[in-house]
This record gives sequence, C-alpha cells and structure tokens, in this order.
Amino acid sequence: MKGFASDNNAGICSEILKAISEVNSGHVVAYGDDAITKKAELRFKQTFGPESEVFFVFNGTAANVLSLKALTQSFNSVICTTSAHIYNDECGAPESLTGCKLLPIETPDGKLTPELISNYLGGRGDQHHVQAKVVSITQATELGTVYSLEEIRLVTKFAHSEGLFVHMDGARISNAAAHLNCSLKEVTADVGIDVLSFGGTKNGLMGAEAVVFLKPKITLDFKYLRKQYMQLSSKMRFIAAQFDALLTGDLWRKNALHANAMAQKLASGLSDLKAVKLCQKVQSNGVFVQIPREKIKSLQERFFFYVWNEKRSEVRWMTSYDTTEEDVDNFLKIIKEEL
Amino acid sequence: MKGFASDNNAGICSEILKAISEVNSGHVVAYGDDAITKKAELRFKQTFGPESEVFFVFNGTAANVLSLKALTQSFNSVICTTSAHIYNDECGAPESLTGCKLLPIETPDGKLTPELISNYLGGRGDQHHVQAKVVSITQATELGTVYSLEEIRLVTKFAHSEGLFVHMDGARISNAAAHLNCSLKEVTADVGIDVLSFGGTKNGLMGAEAVVFLKPKITLDFKYLRKQYMQLSSKMRFIAAQFDALLTGDLWRKNALHANAMAQKLASGLSDLKAVKLCQKVQSNGVFVQIPREKIKSLQERFFFYVWNEKRSEVRWMTSYDTTEEDVDNFLKIIKEEL
Amino acid sequence: MKGFASDNNAGICSEILKAISEVNSGHVVAYGDDAITKKAELRFKQTFGPESEVFFVFNGTAANVLSLKALTQSFNSVICTTSAHIYNDECGAPESLTGCKLLPIETPDGKLTPELISNYLGGRGDQHHVQAKVVSITQATELGTVYSLEEIRLVTKFAHSEGLFVHMDGARISNAAAHLNCSLKEVTADVGIDVLSFGGTKNGLMGAEAVVFLKPKITLDFKYLRKQYMQLSSKMRFIAAQFDALLTGDLWRKNALHANAMAQKLASGLSDLKAVKLCQKVQSNGVFVQIPREKIKSLQERFFFYVWNEKRSEVRWMTSYDTTEEDVDNFLKIIKEEL
Amino acid sequence: MKGFASDNNAGICSEILKAISEVNSGHVVAYGDDAITKKAELRFKQTFGPESEVFFVFNGTAANVLSLKALTQSFNSVICTTSAHIYNDECGAPESLTGCKLLPIETPDGKLTPELISNYLGGRGDQHHVQAKVVSITQATELGTVYSLEEIRLVTKFAHSEGLFVHMDGARISNAAAHLNCSLKEVTADVGIDVLSFGGTKNGLMGAEAVVFLKPKITLDFKYLRKQYMQLSSKMRFIAAQFDALLTGDLWRKNALHANAMAQKLASGLSDLKAVKLCQKVQSNGVFVQIPREKIKSLQERFFFYVWNEKRSEVRWMTSYDTTEEDVDNFLKIIKEEL
Repeated sequence: MKGFASDNNAGICSEILKAISEVNSGHVVAYGDDAITKKAELRFKQTFGPESEVFFVFNGTAANVLSLKALTQSFNSVICTTSAHIYNDECGAPESLTGCKLLPIETPDGKLTPELISNYLGGRGDQHHVQAKVVSITQATELGTVYSLEEIRLVTKFAHSEGLFVHMDGARISNAAAHLNCSLKEVTADVGIDVLSFGGTKNGLMGAEAVVFLKPKITLDFKYLRKQYMQLSSKMRFIAAQFDALLTGDLWRKNALHANAMAQKLASGLSDLKAVKLCQKVQSNGVFVQIPREKIKSLQERFFFYVWNEKRSEVRWMTSYDTTEEDVDNFLKIIKEEL
Repeated sequence: MKGFASDNNAGICSEILKAISEVNSGHVVAYGDDAITKKAELRFKQTFGPESEVFFVFNGTAANVLSLKALTQSFNSVICTTSAHIYNDECGAPESLTGCKLLPIETPDGKLTPELISNYLGGRGDQHHVQAKVVSITQATELGTVYSLEEIRLVTKFAHSEGLFVHMDGARISNAAAHLNCSLKEVTADVGIDVLSFGGTKNGLMGAEAVVFLKPKITLDFKYLRKQYMQLSSKMRFIAAQFDALLTGDLWRKNALHANAMAQKLASGLSDLKAVKLCQKVQSNGVFVQIPREKIKSLQERFFFYVWNEKRSEVRWMTSYDTTEEDVDNFLKIIKEEL
Repeated sequence: MKGFASDNNAGICSEILKAISEVNSGHVVAYGDDAITKKAELRFKQTFGPESEVFFVFNGTAANVLSLKALTQSFNSVICTTSAHIYNDECGAPESLTGCKLLPIETPDGKLTPELISNYLGGRGDQHHVQAKVVSITQATELGTVYSLEEIRLVTKFAHSEGLFVHMDGARISNAAAHLNCSLKEVTADVGIDVLSFGGTKNGLMGAEAVVFLKPKITLDFKYLRKQYMQLSSKMRFIAAQFDALLTGDLWRKNALHANAMAQKLASGLSDLKAVKLCQKVQSNGVFVQIPREKIKSLQERFFFYVWNEKRSEVRWMTSYDTTEEDVDNFLKIIKEEL
Repeated sequence: MKGFASDNNAGICSEILKAISEVNSGHVVAYGDDAITKKAELRFKQTFGPESEVFFVFNGTAANVLSLKALTQSFNSVICTTSAHIYNDECGAPESLTGCKLLPIETPDGKLTPELISNYLGGRGDQHHVQAKVVSITQATELGTVYSLEEIRLVTKFAHSEGLFVHMDGARISNAAAHLNCSLKEVTADVGIDVLSFGGTKNGLMGAEAVVFLKPKITLDFKYLRKQYMQLSSKMRFIAAQFDALLTGDLWRKNALHANAMAQKLASGLSDLKAVKLCQKVQSNGVFVQIPREKIKSLQERFFFYVWNEKRSEVRWMTSYDTTEEDVDNFLKIIKEEL
C-alpha cells in the first residue's frame, strides 16, 4: 500500500530499474572511468551547461555536505534556514565534516531573502568570529514552497556581492522546476547558483544524488574529497545509468509533474474540510496542514505520516512519482471519515 | 568483454538483480525501518550469531572507516599492513575521519602475526604517543592469500591480551571462507574477530557493504555515526534485499568458490610458462605474478589489468563470480602469445 | 593608561609574576611531572574536592573546547545561550574540534533555565538528529550577570534528569563567587556542575586556564586529548605556579572582589546620568549600558571600549583586578563631559 | 640540580624573564593588537625578510600542526622521517587536526634527501591515494644532527620541482644556525624553506613558539586557523616580549652556542670511555650514545635521562642554555664511576 509519509518511501521508477538492468553486462572499468558514466556526465553538461561538472554520490546528505566542504574552510559559516535539511535532518554531518558553524535563520515559508541574510554577516575580518562563506537555500523548500526565479536571483546577487557562494539543496529540484515550468538550468545556473545538490532518490531513483558545480574552477580536487568522504562508488555505471535515464526524455519532469499534481489534488480535496488548515502554499509535492491534535493518532494508524510540528499540531503529507489518483481519493476518504 | 583487472569491474549477479526487482513494489518506510531490512538483519544474526549486529553502508571504504571509528578515539592508533586497503587505497579516509594514526607494518604475504604487532605497542600510557587500540587484518589479504583459522586465532588472542580490538576488512571474506571451506561465522566470530567489514560488492552485489559487530555492547550509538558519516540509505530495502539474496542458499559461497576456482585455473595454466613467476600463493581470487617488464604494455592493451608493483614488475590478475572457463582459456592463450 | 575595554587588557598581577619568578631555578621534569605542578594540582583538589581532577591549558577557548570534547561524541549537541563565548567568540572552535552542533538559545540576561532548555531536547533516539548531551552555562555570564546557587541547581538537576552533563564556562567564575560570597566549590561542584573551565587570565594571570573535572570517572584519557589538541605545556611549572599563587590566601577572591567593586562604583556613578541606561544588573565586573549612538565614537577616542550591540547602541565597560578608584573617577568625569 | 634529560627541563633565561616583567604595566589591547606585539613582529621581519609573516603560538606541537594545516587539505600527505617529532611525539595531532596521512621514512641520521623522498611520490592524480603536498624536515634533527645549507637546498629544490612545500620543524633552529655559523634567514628562507616552526621554549623562553611564513601569499586566513585551533593568546604582549628579547642582540645565538658547546664538551669527555659509543655526530645540543644496558638504571638514578632506543640500548643526553661546565664535569664523573 502506498502512503503519504515520504517520497523516500516509494520504490524505483520502472524506467530507472530498466536502465540499471540494461547496463549490467560484461565488465567495465570501476570507479567511474567507464563509457556509461561518461555518457551520464555528458548529459549533465547538456542539462546544466558546458562549464558545469558533476560528481555522483550515494545520498542527499553526502551531496549537501560535500558541496559545502568544497566551498569552505573550517572557520567559515554557512547561512541557512532553521527548517533546512542540513540544519535538522543530517545528524550534525555538516558541522562535523566541514567544521563550519551553521547559522540558522527563522523564516515562515522556508525561504531566505537578502534582508534576512544581511543580519548574519557580522564579524567579517574579526579573527574571533566565524567567517560567513556560503548561503544554502533549499528548492523546493522543506515546507513544500518554491522560490521564484526572481527570488533566487535576488539571493544570489546579494550573496555574491558579499563574497558568499550560494549552494542549492535540490533534493526536490525537479518538483520546483516542474512547478515553475522551467528547465533545470534556468532554476540553477541561470539564476546564479554556484553548486547544486541534485536529487534523484526522491524522484524515482533507487538511490543516487549528484553534486553539480555550475561555475568553472570551483571543483579543483573534488574527486579526492569524494573518495576520502567515502562517496566513490566502485560499480559507478549503475549510479550513472540511473541519472542518464532520469535526464532522458525529461523523465525527471514527468515524474515531478505527476507528484506535484497529486499534491494539488490532495490539497483541493481538503479545501472544504473545516478541521484541516493549510499551513503553506502547495507548490511542489508536499502538503502541510494543521489538524486537530486528538485526531492525529487514529489517522496515522490508517495511513502513516509524520507530525511536522508537535506544538502547532502540524502534519506533513507527501506525494511521489508513483502516487495514483486512487491513492489520493482513498486517503481523502479516510481523512474525511476520521476528522 | 570480461577482463582480469578487478572484481569491481564485474556487474550485478543475476540473483541479486532479481532480488532488487522483487522488493520494488509499493511504499515501505525509509531508512531501514522496514520488513525487508529486518529480514536481512535477521539473516545476518543467523549467519554470525545472535549477539552480532549489522549495519548496511554503501561501500567498502565506509565499512572500514566506520568500523574503526566505532572502536577508537582520535588519539588511538590502528595497526595494519603496508598493503592494507585502509592504508593505501582510501585516500587517507581512515586518518581523516577517525583522526587516528595508522601504523603500517611490512609483511611479505599481507598477513600480520603477534610478533609483528608486538613491535608497535610502545608508548602505552605516555601522553605524547598515540595509543594503539585496533589491529586491522584483511581476509582474504590484498595479496590474494588467506589467513588460516589458527593464524587469526593467534592474532586475536594476542591483541585481546594487549587490550586491542581486532577488525577484519572482509571485502573478500567470502573468497576466504570458500577457500577454507568453513562458514562465515567460523572465520570471524569464532576466531575472535570483534568487528567485520563484510564485503558484498566484489562478490556480485550492485554496491553494498556491511559493518558487522560480532560482540555485544560495542555498537552503542553506531546508528548516529552511520548517519552522520553519510552512509544511511533512504531506500534501504534495496541494499537489504541484495544481502538477503547473497546469504540465501549460500549464494555468497557459490560465487566465491567459482571465482577462486577460476584463479586456480589461471594459475595452473601459467605454471609451465618460464616468463611468469608466481609471487604469492593463490588462495582466493587473485593471481600475483612477476612478468617481463617489457611485455606488460602490450599485454595490457589486449586485456587490461593493473601493475601491482612497478619496481618488481609484479602485476595483479583478478577473477570474479562471472569469469568463465572460456575467459581464462582465452586470457591464457593471449598471455602465451605475448610472453 | 588603564581602560575599561576588557579584563584581558590588564597585565600580570604582582603576586603571580613573583610566583613565576620564584619557581625559575634549576631543572624540573617537563610536561607536568614535577613537584610544582603536583602542588598546584593538590590545591585544586583542596579547592574543589578530593574527587576533582584538574588539567592546565593555555587559554579559555581551549578550556571550553576540551571540556566539551571530553563529554561528547561528534553526533552530540551542546545547548548554550546565543551570548555564550563558545557560540560567538571562538571562531567556531567548538563545532570544528568536537564536531558537535551548538544549539543557541536566546535569553535576555545570559542565563539558561530548565524551561528554556526543554525546548531543545527533541529528536532523542532519532538517528537523523543530533543528540543533546551537554548544557553549557557561563558564570558570570557574558552580560555581567550571575546565576544564583539555586538557579544553577535547577539547571543541573533538570539536565541530569535528562541525561545531560553540565559544563560551566568559568572564565569569570571568581567574580561570580565573589559576588555570591561563596567558595569556588559551592558555586560549582556543590550545585551539580560536571566540568568547569576555570579562568585565570581575566583575574590577573599571565595566561593560564584549567579544565576541572568535578565528578570522578569522566576524565579517563583526558591527558591524551590535551596533548593531541596542542594544550600540553612543556614548562608546566610556570603555569602551575600561577594557579598555586591564585589559590593561595584566596588571591582569586581578593582580585575579583576588587574588580566587582570597581564595576559597582562605575555603575553608581552613572546612575544620575539620564543619557546612560543600564541594560543588565551589575553583578560581576561588567557594566552594560545603552548610550546615545552619536556619542560613542568621541567617547571611545578618549577611553577605548567595545560596542556590544550596534543595533541597540549598547556598550560594554569592564573593570579588572587593577582598576583603581582614580581610574573610575577619571572615566566617570570623561563620560559626563561627553554625554 | 640541573640534568641532561631535556632542554625542556630548563627554566626561563634571565633576559627573558626580565622582558616579561618590563612589559607588565598598564593596559594594552589584547589578542596581539598592541605595540609590543607589533615590535616583535617587526623583529621577525628584520630577521627573516620583509616578505615573511609571523604568528605566535603556545607550543611546538601547535607550531608544527598549524604550519601543516596551512599548507594542506585533508587528502594530502606529509613526508617526514620516522624520527620526526610530528610523527612520534605529538600524540597523533598532525593526523587528527589536519586529516593528512604522514608518510614516515627511515633514515639513519634523521635527515631526508631527494632520493629518499622520491620513493613516496606515487599515486599523484589518483583519487584513491593521498596526494603528497609537504615535506617536513627537522633542523637540528631529533638525533642532534644538522643539515648543511646545501643539504637543505637540495631538498627544497627537489620538493618544489615536485609541487611540494617544505616545512621546517625548527624547535632547535637556533642550535642549528649556531652550529652552521649562519643567520636564521640563511638556514631557512635563503635555502628555500616555505614555512618554519620557530622554537623558543627549548632555548630559554618560558613557553612560546612561532609559525613563520617565509613566502608571501601562503598566510591568507591563517589568523582564523590560529584562533580556531585555540592558539591565540589574549595577553599576547607577554609572548611577544619573550621573542623580542630572544632576537635582541642575538640572544638566541648566545644561548644556542653555549648549549652546543656543552654538548661538545660532554662528547669529548666521553671519547676515552670504551663502554660508551657515540651514535650520531654531535652538531647541536644532543648527545646520543649506546651504553651497556645493565648500567642504564643506576645511572638514571643519579642523573635522570631518557632511553632513546631500548633495543639498541641507546640513550639521549641533552644540554641547554643553562648547563654549566661544572654540570658537565659532574655528569662525566658520575658516568665514569658507573660505567
């Protein structure tokens, strides 16, 4: 049974599993020096521009942490929101593995702005203070909202003027680009992002993410970091093939559009329920709602999901590439029964 | 075309790919809290004993580094051979991520002995010196040799008497157990190993390794280390299913026996060639030979392989679970033509 | 000329310089294995109780960082205030060298309470979240306030009930004990503190701080951490002699009482100035006041001091063991002229 | 009573203690932004050249580790001798705090040569291998020998041609320069050294060492590293004043020449003793001799010293700036009685 707990709970998209199977014949050189990997790397260059450079890693935490590691020294700081995955959900990996302090900013919709960032730039040049070096934004945000292209442009312009890099945690970048009806390049390189964590797993891959450097000359030596931080796959062809398939015929967009549409359908179906209050705009594949505290447990028993904020009685419902209309209808029916 | 460069160059064993495919339906809880993962974990307990505890990770470097991390503090040292994977082939990950110094010991056959280890135990209790805490042995060794059960027992007994843990890098533990005609438990827990890096990738998996704690109470808190060190898979079921299949019906042994047999066949075929000198006993799936320096390049062009030691003109030929008798015959034919 | 910028700007108290000079004859064993160091260590046991154990280090950052290092693993978090020295003034050393995340809590007077702490204990047992392990409080606080013994007791009782250690940054512990008119033991060990950074430098030493473990069995192996983190002095006798002198005849209290009294005198002298608004209770040797923004610069030119909070136009005036009544009168005269 | 165990066992040279005392009046800005520190920094520029830049730290381990930290990333390696202080005597601090692997080279006299180094340069550009980045030499060596200027020049020329930096652990650089009868600049910057750990403590200081960058543009950001790694002194004037005094009127040379002469006197006095075999040339302030194993203990009881190599029954006798002719005569008398 499919649920609405997490897009990580879905399996492998059929096109992806097929791609894994198709490259499984004979021997190829390990560790990425093979034709399948080269082909996938070329697809990334076609997608993000000829100056971009991609490195495949195993999971999203690694994509984020190694992106930050490449941009910082241990005395730097990274500015992010209090809801950022790097701040909340990676067991302190960013601090522990980069040495940097994360500067968390409260924000109602999961988005940073130049004004918010500017409060965290004190102590530049003072040896007693960490030196801000990176702004990390999440697109789509952890709250299901999506930065407009203009909003990103304002952040990157301000950040660059202050000597800061901008990293994008794009675990759900496909959902954001689908929502904005733009290309992956338009929502990243073209609006000034320096380094991107490109998410595959939440969009139908078995398990693979990519660090994409969008500007030349940042990447020097990154291959050693990837290896030393235990993210170099020996049978790389199977990761590469997944990405190659995801970028073929815009499968990434097809999957993301579907997940987004299912979230819209779910939100629409909730609109006439007085007991349910939408907490955020539904712009990607997440629906954040406040529901009566006393109803949470019984509802969870029928369809498991996570409580997002205990205090506010706010819960998170996620759709994925494989959520069907029937799944949504079924879930709505149960919600209505319970609430 | 299949080669003899590395067992990492082989693809996914058909039973394993089938297992991945079979668990790919519907949603399951992410990050390992699902029935497929529980089943695989149970198989490890059945294999290594009820007190053992397993944690799946993405690759061999991670299995080794996190094993050592769990056993040490930053001021400890780890005793290993100069040929150990942790010393040579992990881009300094063990030092960088555990903080520990590795103490490398020269040994002709890749094996440690109590006598060799005893030279590296100076400075105990002296605050100026790193404090030896772990002996790490590799089974089968990087040189294709295999410790006998008695040899391991001597090492673990000595190490424990000195207050040291013993870690086994078992990237090719299946080949060793196949050679020794014993169970996985007999070659690890039963002879005193504390923590095992259990290798799957070199024996037919798509990409998965496991840290197996063989003694109770070492593992406390390891789940946080795995997450923080970026080795927690979200779609864990696909890693778990691979291991479940590998341990089902002793597939691990079948694959390893075959690879070992192919190495024996290759070595036998070389025995009447004067230009080829065997450097190590062939006890697993590696054949280490000295060949005329001037012949290396032309031979590599027909069948790629790695030079192991430039100075000694020593090369390494590896077989794998999918090497066929024809592959070996064909390779032998070419060797004879070239040498 | 003496100023009110920082208690770090004062020199060496005469008794301390004399102590350094007196132990400077002949050879003694280096690295702390000498009679002078043993004598100082014994004084700490007499001061803090027989179960306590002291380790001398070079500066306050080291005392704090190594205290936290001894209590944590990299996946832990440390709860502190946003005004804590470990959060603001150590260039990210705590995160970088312990790997831990610091959880900063806003508080008006620099003090933590059980209620404030309880908001930061989520995610216990969840592998995605850092695991809270230490509460770090500062006594006297960075804002010049002092926890009462009862306030500390409430924090330590709550923290211990939640499985947390309590660290005290005691860079100005002497000023706090002087204010509370209690012994050093009463304000630390007796109210439940686990580990103390005992400050010497701000109270007249040339440069020396101490990590004091107040409970048995925490310290195991700390000597290796101190050495590895570059805090073991070779000519230890000269650090030890400073502490021995500081604890002799309660020199620590004499110096601290005097600095506190000078702060009181300064605050009293300001009370009839309408342009000056006291921001915090004056309980140690710091006076925090709001003054007209446009007056700051001209006043700084005559007596240098630091702006504490630009936005609030708040400045910090510190007294020290060597501040004289004349210094205060002189400063008050200038303030009155300028404001 | 003065001994021959270690130059760290000596106290503070009278000129140095006087210098500390003389700068102890009034308030000065903390953390190095004061006139006394500026004056000492200027002296370093006069000593090592206008392009050099100095940073004071607390001890030798810090000077070495932070020098290496400034030159490396975590995937680099540092080439040194097996007798190097960074390899043996710093409790793994270099590995733990830089993340780098140390590549230890056996050498009979403590000196590296281009030929020895060249064996450790394999794996350049290979992501599986650490990337050699620094050669660290010790002058005078841990064995009391001294590199000639030409020997250093050969090492730096070779290292630079291979893209490596050269660090000099100059804990006893003064003894080396005194032996070579050259300036401090001639034995460092002029022969190609990139970064120097300049030792003060073993030559009469209370406790202070310096990192000296000898080439421009290496130092960018070093102030943050020093602070974060807990080596920024608040009352910096007292460290600066020691160095200022050491460099005034070549006090460094006077002290070192005397220590060296006392070592020569000791060695000469041993020359007619059959039971004593000199193991190394006496070129600085250390005398390494083989003595009958059974005599060591009784001799140690009368004059404590360290056994350097248990297996070879080799012991180390060190002289210092304050060793007198009478001390040497007395020690020789006792040696003759015992052996």
